[in-house]
Amino acid sequence: MSANTIDDLGLVNPLWVNSPAALLSSDARILQFMLDVECAWMAVLVEGGRADPAWLPVVTEACRVEHYNLAEIAREAQGGGNPLIPLLGALRRRVGETSPGAAARLHVGATSQDILDTALLLVARDVLTELRADLNGLADALERLAREHVGTLAVARTLGQHSLPGTFGLRAAQWLAGVVAAERQVADVLRQLPLQWGGAAGTMAALTQFAGDHALVLTDALAARLGLALPVAPWQTTRWPMTRIAGSAAEAVAACTRIANDVAFLTRPEVAEVAEPQVEGRGGSSAMPQKQNPVLSVLVRSASFQAPGALAQVVAAAAAAVDERPDGAWHAEWAPLRQLLRLAGGAASLTRELAEGLVVFPERMRANLDAAGPLILTERITAVVVPLLAEAGIPDGAAQIAAAIADTRAGTAS
Amino acid sequence: MSANTIDDLGLVNPLWVNSPAALLSSDARILQFMLDVECAWMAVLVEGGRADPAWLPVVTEACRVEHYNLAEIAREAQGGGNPLIPLLGALRRRVGETSPGAAARLHVGATSQDILDTALLLVARDVLTELRADLNGLADALERLAREHVGTLAVARTLGQHSLPGTFGLRAAQWLAGVVAAERQVADVLRQLPLQWGGAAGTMAALTQFAGDHALVLTDALAARLGLALPVAPWQTTRWPMTRIAGSAAEAVAACTRIANDVAFLTRPEVAEVAEPQVEGRGGSSAMPQKQNPVLSVLVRSASFQAPGALAQVVAAAAAAVDERPDGAWHAEWAPLRQLLRLAGGAASLTRELAEGLVVFPERMRANLDAAGPLILTERITAVVVPLLAEAGIPDGAAQIAAAIADTRAGTAS
Amino acid sequence: MSANTIDDLGLVNPLWVNSPAALLSSDARILQFMLDVECAWMAVLVEGGRADPAWLPVVTEACRVEHYNLAEIAREAQGGGNPLIPLLGALRRRVGETSPGAAARLHVGATSQDILDTALLLVARDVLTELRADLNGLADALERLAREHVGTLAVARTLGQHSLPGTFGLRAAQWLAGVVAAERQVADVLRQLPLQWGGAAGTMAALTQFAGDHALVLTDALAARLGLALPVAPWQTTRWPMTRIAGSAAEAVAACTRIANDVAFLTRPEVAEVAEPQVEGRGGSSAMPQKQNPVLSVLVRSASFQAPGALAQVVAAAAAAVDERPDGAWHAEWAPLRQLLRLAGGAASLTRELAEGLVVFPERMRANLDAAGPLILTERITAVVVPLLAEAGIPDGAAQIAAAIADTRAGTAS
Amino acid sequence: MSANTIDDLGLVNPLWVNSPAALLSSDARILQFMLDVECAWMAVLVEGGRADPAWLPVVTEACRVEHYNLAEIAREAQGGGNPLIPLLGALRRRVGETSPGAAARLHVGATSQDILDTALLLVARDVLTELRADLNGLADALERLAREHVGTLAVARTLGQHSLPGTFGLRAAQWLAGVVAAERQVADVLRQLPLQWGGAAGTMAALTQFAGDHALVLTDALAARLGLALPVAPWQTTRWPMTRIAGSAAEAVAACTRIANDVAFLTRPEVAEVAEPQVEGRGGSSAMPQKQNPVLSVLVRSASFQAPGALAQVVAAAAAAVDERPDGAWHAEWAPLRQLLRLAGGAASLTRELAEGLVVFPERMRANLDAAGPLILTERITAVVVPLLAEAGIPDGAAQIAAAIADTRAGTAS
Repeated sequence: MSANTIDDLGLVNPLWVNSPAALLSSDARILQFMLDVECAWMAVLVEGGRADPAWLPVVTEACRVEHYNLAEIAREAQGGGNPLIPLLGALRRRVGETSPGAAARLHVGATSQDILDTALLLVARDVLTELRADLNGLADALERLAREHVGTLAVARTLGQHSLPGTFGLRAAQWLAGVVAAERQVADVLRQLPLQWGGAAGTMAALTQFAGDHALVLTDALAARLGLALPVAPWQTTRWPMTRIAGSAAEAVAACTRIANDVAFLTRPEVAEVAEPQVEGRGGSSAMPQKQNPVLSVLVRSASFQAPGALAQVVAAAAAAVDERPDGAWHAEWAPLRQLLRLAGGAASLTRELAEGLVVFPERMRANLDAAGPLILTERITAVVVPLLAEAGIPDGAAQIAAAIADTRAGTAS
Repeated sequence: MSANTIDDLGLVNPLWVNSPAALLSSDARILQFMLDVECAWMAVLVEGGRADPAWLPVVTEACRVEHYNLAEIAREAQGGGNPLIPLLGALRRRVGETSPGAAARLHVGATSQDILDTALLLVARDVLTELRADLNGLADALERLAREHVGTLAVARTLGQHSLPGTFGLRAAQWLAGVVAAERQVADVLRQLPLQWGGAAGTMAALTQFAGDHALVLTDALAARLGLALPVAPWQTTRWPMTRIAGSAAEAVAACTRIANDVAFLTRPEVAEVAEPQVEGRGGSSAMPQKQNPVLSVLVRSASFQAPGALAQVVAAAAAAVDERPDGAWHAEWAPLRQLLRLAGGAASLTRELAEGLVVFPERMRANLDAAGPLILTERITAVVVPLLAEAGIPDGAAQIAAAIADTRAGTAS
Repeated sequence: MSANTIDDLGLVNPLWVNSPAALLSSDARILQFMLDVECAWMAVLVEGGRADPAWLPVVTEACRVEHYNLAEIAREAQGGGNPLIPLLGALRRRVGETSPGAAARLHVGATSQDILDTALLLVARDVLTELRADLNGLADALERLAREHVGTLAVARTLGQHSLPGTFGLRAAQWLAGVVAAERQVADVLRQLPLQWGGAAGTMAALTQFAGDHALVLTDALAARLGLALPVAPWQTTRWPMTRIAGSAAEAVAACTRIANDVAFLTRPEVAEVAEPQVEGRGGSSAMPQKQNPVLSVLVRSASFQAPGALAQVVAAAAAAVDERPDGAWHAEWAPLRQLLRLAGGAASLTRELAEGLVVFPERMRANLDAAGPLILTERITAVVVPLLAEAGIPDGAAQIAAAIADTRAGTAS
Repeated sequence: MSANTIDDLGLVNPLWVNSPAALLSSDARILQFMLDVECAWMAVLVEGGRADPAWLPVVTEACRVEHYNLAEIAREAQGGGNPLIPLLGALRRRVGETSPGAAARLHVGATSQDILDTALLLVARDVLTELRADLNGLADALERLAREHVGTLAVARTLGQHSLPGTFGLRAAQWLAGVVAAERQVADVLRQLPLQWGGAAGTMAALTQFAGDHALVLTDALAARLGLALPVAPWQTTRWPMTRIAGSAAEAVAACTRIANDVAFLTRPEVAEVAEPQVEGRGGSSAMPQKQNPVLSVLVRSASFQAPGALAQVVAAAAAAVDERPDGAWHAEWAPLRQLLRLAGGAASLTRELAEGLVVFPERMRANLDAAGPLILTERITAVVVPLLAEAGIPDGAAQIAAAIADTRAGTAS
């Protein structure tokens, strides 16, 4: 490892460093997807009789990320403002060595934003698909916990204080409700992801010039080949696909961190109602060998402080769109979109691991409930007694109950 | 006007000060909706045979915001952390003067979060409904512009530069696509808004104690009466309803600001392709009587810098939920949720006004296009010529065209 | 209270509804400060021999907020995009009734942004001054706690787990360090607040036309009269004064919420190491009379989810400045700046109240520490023993200690 | 390049991919700085007579990033929640091969947060130092522009419209004022950066156990050796150093984007008052060879949509600190802090390049001013004439001037 490189390997992102989301959204994957879109377009042209079938194997072979120097393309991206420009140059050079005709036909009618937007959607599709799987796995684990602990008494807490008796199963069911809602939202967004294909200014001018009446047919075929929805219109400056991806990822983060918040609290030694799954290599401390840290919930919680700001970045960029292609707002979207996808992917996979291995201590739950004492039943008492008192002509029953409680407490304390 | 009050009247919010959204989400409306929920619950209890029918007129009469001192309730809200506590006290006192039984039965089985969450959803429903109307009106205006200017040539701009010929109709159609997508999203969210009804700890304990098997029947009846969806579970700590309201409002803001960004640019004197509708009292300057400011687009644009942060606030609160009711995160939601609703409502109503009265100058559009010169056609030329050159054995056609253009420019410049 | 108004009285902002910050930053105060700036300018003109001394009493009398209809001015602010325009019209009409000359001289050389920016800085000065007082009061209380509990043993917690023995005094000292740093930052910002005075385009053109060489002398005199720093240049598009105010307010929020986070945890019944001050009217529940909620820390914590987004709004607006006066970014600053000032003011005043009345339970701290057991001393043991073991040729001492601990725990558990 | 890795090389961050900030804050640099801190501590121990001098060369040699597998350490960081834990293990193994005593003494009294916080501050110091250099270079360029164009007439624009005559030099001076303010802020922050050194729970317990009265002397020596300020107290949960770094970076971004916003507008063909420096490889388009994009300002502008959200992330984490070391909030800081540093570093270096090579077209500025017509002088006229009219008994002079202007315009238009 030399210090003379900007390679980032997730050193400051332990939440998602080992997640599929990280791998599925790496620089290399983005580059590969850009190549995939160029290659799919050539395949569509060939199918539509607009390109020589002999070109396709050449282009297909050339569209493998292994052929390209990612670091160089990243550096050269600054020149034109996006990475497609140097990548297309390198691709054309490679294809052109074998087939100048294919090199010239590549990318016909397209613009860099078409390729990069579509590639980012393909990245998002992969990550969101994995995210759904993790949310579903998490939901299964929560459902098991809810069923298993349907009768496990535990104190319910509101504003941090003991409020009423509840069950741990009910709590798990609440967690589940949030996860299911988030999964539904992700699924909805996955169904909506539209191809971006508009040409240099979203007018499809070059494509229409090139393919005439078949321009839309070819576009449809490209969407079908890539498995994306057909857009009503190019969305170069209408960025709802990006804000919805971001919104669904942020909702998934919230559904997970909400669980991690509880676990982080419930594993505190004073409470000790649950424990994180103990796995070799998890939870160690650099200074205190005896300490078992709730690392899963700590890392998941770290997403709760990052996702809101990342979502704000994506929305800020969307709201700043202008002209036929934006002058800076587009370029601001890529990094935060990926960051959100990774935060969601990392949070869901670790929360799933957490739920699947969660150790529950019903005795301790019962002990904490018992420690709360009989006063905890006052909501029920108040609901029943106050109306009776009122019917008996004692209108301020609630206050009297409160006074009685205060007296009891004073007695207990003394 | 005395300086000794905290009354805010929208002085620093010219974007939404005159909007229906402001009125529909005022402190007084929130208070009224809290009263409405308490009243609807009493009506449900009466219908379900769980309360004396004679109580309902008493409660109905008492549930009018006019009877209460909003400032006092706002101040007293600090004591318990939310405004329902003092409001319920005042309501019970008022009802209790006539009917102690009714006063005692009020709010049975409910907790303050049930009332306030549901009231905020009713506020959101009103604002989002109005927002849909404005987005639909805006869409109608944009459709008219798109149809009327389907053939109005204009230069398309990318990264701020002239890129290709386009039409103003196509641009209006792009604006329209974003507005329609946002309207659909708002409509989706409106269908999902769920009643919040869980009791002190989301366990429905007191309600079940009170109503036994009928607890859920009563809850269903309340949802039906208020026109809200029935929740799968209480969402006291599962805040997707709030994040989705916020997300749809932010998307509406982006759809509007994206238009305002264009108009703010197109009304600049150097461009002058459109003008804002001139209305008496709009667009003046305190120092320069001759100046006509594009105030509508300026104010709409102001939302683009506020909505992302407000959305981040709502999501941060959702992600911080804990226990059976959160210890601070819930309290953080109310103000930013309202702010987002107002930003969206204000932006949509002003953008609608802007689009309905937009003055278009086709001659100036044509002049700007002509000024761009013949070079603007190069996307089409490149698409057609490069493949021909390639077939003729000249693989680097694009570079040669670029060189030719550079020569032409140099010639023009000299 | 009628529902037909947008009056907001802090109903959804229990954190700051009763704070001086709310009052000091109300719409009425902003209006008054705009009038104060206009009046101070007239006084400067009179002193500088550029206005008739007889005008000053007329203007002074007219510059009282009581004379104006705030709601009307707020509504009319939409026309020109800011509230100074209708206010100046109303002021001129009022002054003009008595003294047309004074009415015409008012505002000479100024633009609406000069008045509103400066007024907002005067608002910020008042709130930040009050904030300093509260932070200093909070620091005093924390210092007392630190001194009093210098020897109060308590368990130190890291990642939620028991780590080492500490003292409650040390914890209070840590809280103090953050509060002192925040107070220093606020004090620094207070020293920097610069007058905004640039005329319609920041060129001082009209003022120079009017006053010639004395333009800067008059500007200096205005800054001195208002107690503001003299700016190097007009900052109409150079918004560091706004971002620094916002940054210091956000830092104050963080210093307070960091304390509230601890108190919210320490007051949980399982921990019970501290209690919030019990005051009549604080901490009640609508459904459970027995419950004592830690309302102060809950409300303070609510700021932690709002301040980051509000700061993002102010910075987003600053980063979007353009031209000689921005086309929307300026208008986006006002509301979030005020929101941040109120969040900081509310958080500091409630945290001060919390610290001044905090009830500490040393016995319970000791009990929690004892429950942590002797293993908690392992950091010290490891630090001493591992090197000794190493010198004795046992290089993996830390691992052996960890193993011994695991054995001990297993023994304890069995 | 294989797709089977998460290596990121800045592909989606063209703003900063080539900046020193990227290199200075890479994963490898962070790793190296963590090693540097461990090494410096050993040197301090040796100097203080607390470690064998023979150990230092062993440790020094081992503390080179080249020896370690960054990817592996990043992956293993998930186990304990931070990268120091696996790094320290690897370092100890390496040192232990030669010198078990040194291996055991390494890190004595420290905790992972001490090392990582301090390393991140050293990263920040490097980036901020480079940032200052770029801001100073940018300031020099702006000063040259301001001097050179002190008399270059140009129209001043407010709310997008022509307002008054100004000069390009004045505009450059305004840009300069913002850059100088930002540079001062960065310099202030650089002076404040404090060593973090508190041990496992911020109590310095192990260090005091180990070194007795010399604990603070050793800590001082470490701060001095690393060139950091000595903290008043450990700041493990008092995160003002992080929020101030972030705040100063965000202010630098705003100072730069404010310039880029202007340049992006002024390079638009309809305005054409300036051009970006033309450099081989900058500004190309994938579809339109004739197009010269203002890539520098576009990329700099992209920071304006990202910095606010990143700042919100850092502040959210700071505000969520709890206990003696936070349970998730700490882990959330690292990525956004680095992102902000890179955004600021990238923005400053590109804005400097932009300003140093900015091409100014005074003739076009003059032409745009002339096109604004004589009406643009109305601010001055109004300032002079209105008082005269008032003295002559005509109180509504401003309205009369406005009417005259309207007549003139009507005449011009007809």
